Amino acid sequence: MALIVHKYGGTSMGSVERIKNVAQRVAKWHAAGHYMVVVPSAMSGETNRLLGLAKELSPQPDPRELDAIAATGEQVSVGLLAIALKAIGVDAVSYGGWQVPIHTDNAYTKARITSIEDARVRADLAKRKVVIITGFQGIDPEGNVTTLGRGGSDTSAVAVAAALKAEECLIYTDVDGVYTTDPRVVPEARRLEKVTFEEMLEMASLGSKVLQIRSVEFAGKYKVKTRVLSSLTPPDIDLAIEANSGTLVTFEEDETMEQAVISGIAFNRDEAKLTMLKVPDRPGIAYSILGPVAQANIDVDMIIQNASTDGTTDFSFTVHRNEYQRAMEVLNAAKDQMKAAQVLGDPKIAKVSVVGIGMRSHVGIASLMFRTLSEEGINIQMISTSEIKISVVIEDKYMELAVRALHKAFGLDQAA
Amino acid sequence: MALIVHKYGGTSMGSVERIKNVAQRVAKWHAAGHYMVVVPSAMSGETNRLLGLAKELSPQPDPRELDAIAATGEQVSVGLLAIALKAIGVDAVSYGGWQVPIHTDNAYTKARITSIEDARVRADLAKRKVVIITGFQGIDPEGNVTTLGRGGSDTSAVAVAAALKAEECLIYTDVDGVYTTDPRVVPEARRLEKVTFEEMLEMASLGSKVLQIRSVEFAGKYKVKTRVLSSLTPPDIDLAIEANSGTLVTFEEDETMEQAVISGIAFNRDEAKLTMLKVPDRPGIAYSILGPVAQANIDVDMIIQNASTDGTTDFSFTVHRNEYQRAMEVLNAAKDQMKAAQVLGDPKIAKVSVVGIGMRSHVGIASLMFRTLSEEGINIQMISTSEIKISVVIEDKYMELAVRALHKAFGLDQAA
Repeated sequence: MALIVHKYGGTSMGSVERIKNVAQRVAKWHAAGHYMVVVPSAMSGETNRLLGLAKELSPQPDPRELDAIAATGEQVSVGLLAIALKAIGVDAVSYGGWQVPIHTDNAYTKARITSIEDARVRADLAKRKVVIITGFQGIDPEGNVTTLGRGGSDTSAVAVAAALKAEECLIYTDVDGVYTTDPRVVPEARRLEKVTFEEMLEMASLGSKVLQIRSVEFAGKYKVKTRVLSSLTPPDIDLAIEANSGTLVTFEEDETMEQAVISGIAFNRDEAKLTMLKVPDRPGIAYSILGPVAQANIDVDMIIQNASTDGTTDFSFTVHRNEYQRAMEVLNAAKDQMKAAQVLGDPKIAKVSVVGIGMRSHVGIASLMFRTLSEEGINIQMISTSEIKISVVIEDKYMELAVRALHKAFGLDQAA
Repeated sequence: MALIVHKYGGTSMGSVERIKNVAQRVAKWHAAGHYMVVVPSAMSGETNRLLGLAKELSPQPDPRELDAIAATGEQVSVGLLAIALKAIGVDAVSYGGWQVPIHTDNAYTKARITSIEDARVRADLAKRKVVIITGFQGIDPEGNVTTLGRGGSDTSAVAVAAALKAEECLIYTDVDGVYTTDPRVVPEARRLEKVTFEEMLEMASLGSKVLQIRSVEFAGKYKVKTRVLSSLTPPDIDLAIEANSGTLVTFEEDETMEQAVISGIAFNRDEAKLTMLKVPDRPGIAYSILGPVAQANIDVDMIIQNASTDGTTDFSFTVHRNEYQRAMEVLNAAKDQMKAAQVLGDPKIAKVSVVGIGMRSHVGIASLMFRTLSEEGINIQMISTSEIKISVVIEDKYMELAVRALHKAFGLDQAA
């Protein structure tokens, strides 16, 4: 008899038949006595259709209007799901973000949730109604509709679960959990039964696109038990089986569990590398290079400053590949003022990372990683480390080879 | 420098190109110094698409959810129009009905507007912004989204014009005004430059589908000058010409104008006739017949009770043709208790009406109407009259003939 939040993605809501499946699944949980809150995304394709119309009218549509338009996709979804539930005899009610309300700041198209009022939802739950809330959106202090940005429905679901102190937040998606790495690259990849939110955070930001990164931050901050599981199982699958499927993102280390050293191998090809050669090595050099980049609103990921011997230093960083050209222009414009010798760039890179909360208490992870890559003849261009991950930048053509070799070297092929 | 309300229908908003045209037209009025409020409908087809999805999920979808879903069509329209205006340099802002707010009762799918707050809109107008407000919808006292029913955007526009005390409400549509009758039936039909709201009311309720009837009631009640005009003219047409085109629905008789006796001929084939034969003629008989009909939620239009000679009476009325079968069942079920001899029904009827505020001060209108029909050999089955209209029910196959003959007999073919 717990309070449970379900989140369904756009594919799960993609047609009338699929919405009926979602209703059946929710009805099963409701019938088992749980108090149910559901956060669905817009029907697949709908958000793109709406934004496409706006883009046809203006290359740079007003963000406030864009949010009001995009938010309607989820408003349709919640109404349809309520109707589908009522059609099978389950009392349900839908709310838009502004009706709950879900308060956000006013950063249109990428707003952040500031608070969620729970009185209206709790009153409905007490009457055994299924409460369906729009994902992806909220309302700012002036009463304008805001959206949370792409994938924001995950964040909405976790935030609602946090506000209602839900027992668990179940994120239904078209994959059946979080894997040690992408099974398309490494067929031996295994599904993780559990992963800590810190690991998930590293996996998500490194390209394991199962959960939106901000939702993981929320889950960690508010200690929301979040489970990623498949929406492709039959909706009438035994509830006990379903409730233990997928991957549980926990907010604490499970002391009773034998913790694997490494949980997974993450990778992406989304980045490009830029290097400023032979910049005079003086205090403030990092800021003087990255300041103009930040002013151009370009996000920087990895940053490496090599040790200097001759009074100059080589300064490298990575940006999203889409912003490579702009970043090059910014650096070239700044080059002379910095007295730098040259600006180099390389968009053909890949980032590969080993992630694991277990590495905190183990030595030798880095050396095993570097040895493995060396044995495959793969040159490492950049290295960056955190407490629970080690990332390297390599030439992009070696990416799959590196991922497979590391997956094997760290024993991820074998069942735990 | 007046405050002007524009309303655009779904066809006018039907594509990105058409929305750009609407933006150009509004920009022209704004550039002339007017304070502009615009009420657009959903893009054509969108409301049907949304309701279709709901109907696929349930034959009788929950009305609250249905309204929340249907309302999104206009929410998309207002955002797109705001973006289109900004793209051509006109500052604009969109609001959903709940943001204005437009208050309604809670009769989902056919809500009535109770009040409109104007502070937010006035503040934007004072900053020379074009304010774009969703048609067709509002918010009930509990904060639920409501819709006004089909064609409700006309009503929204007139209600907004009333609340803001606008100089004029311009309803842009795919016809260029109100005609003496349907030009598809009578090629000689002429566009009326002016029509009183009482005449418009009779024309609208009788099937001249130019303006939604409730919007005409609103225009009359709050004395809103309302003009019906074409959205198919080039958007850059001279403003003075556009401002005097179409048909003006006035709230007072124009004393200086030579008032035509008859303004137009209205007609429809939407009704069916039912008759209860030889009911004992006693007080309360009308109620005892129409009570069960009303309880079955069937609207009745014309009602005729013939004079009785033998202690019994024949009682006839018309209903919408879609409800003919249900009405027959109600009467047959009640027949024995009423001691009626028989129930007769005829769905193959047409109603033809002559309408004109001028007929109040003229005699002989009815006799000219009846003589004209008689000369064409058309039998009159029912007659009903009001101060400004006379309606007859005839066999439906004679409808076009009757309309053409009356249009000619009342001199509507000739320019005033």
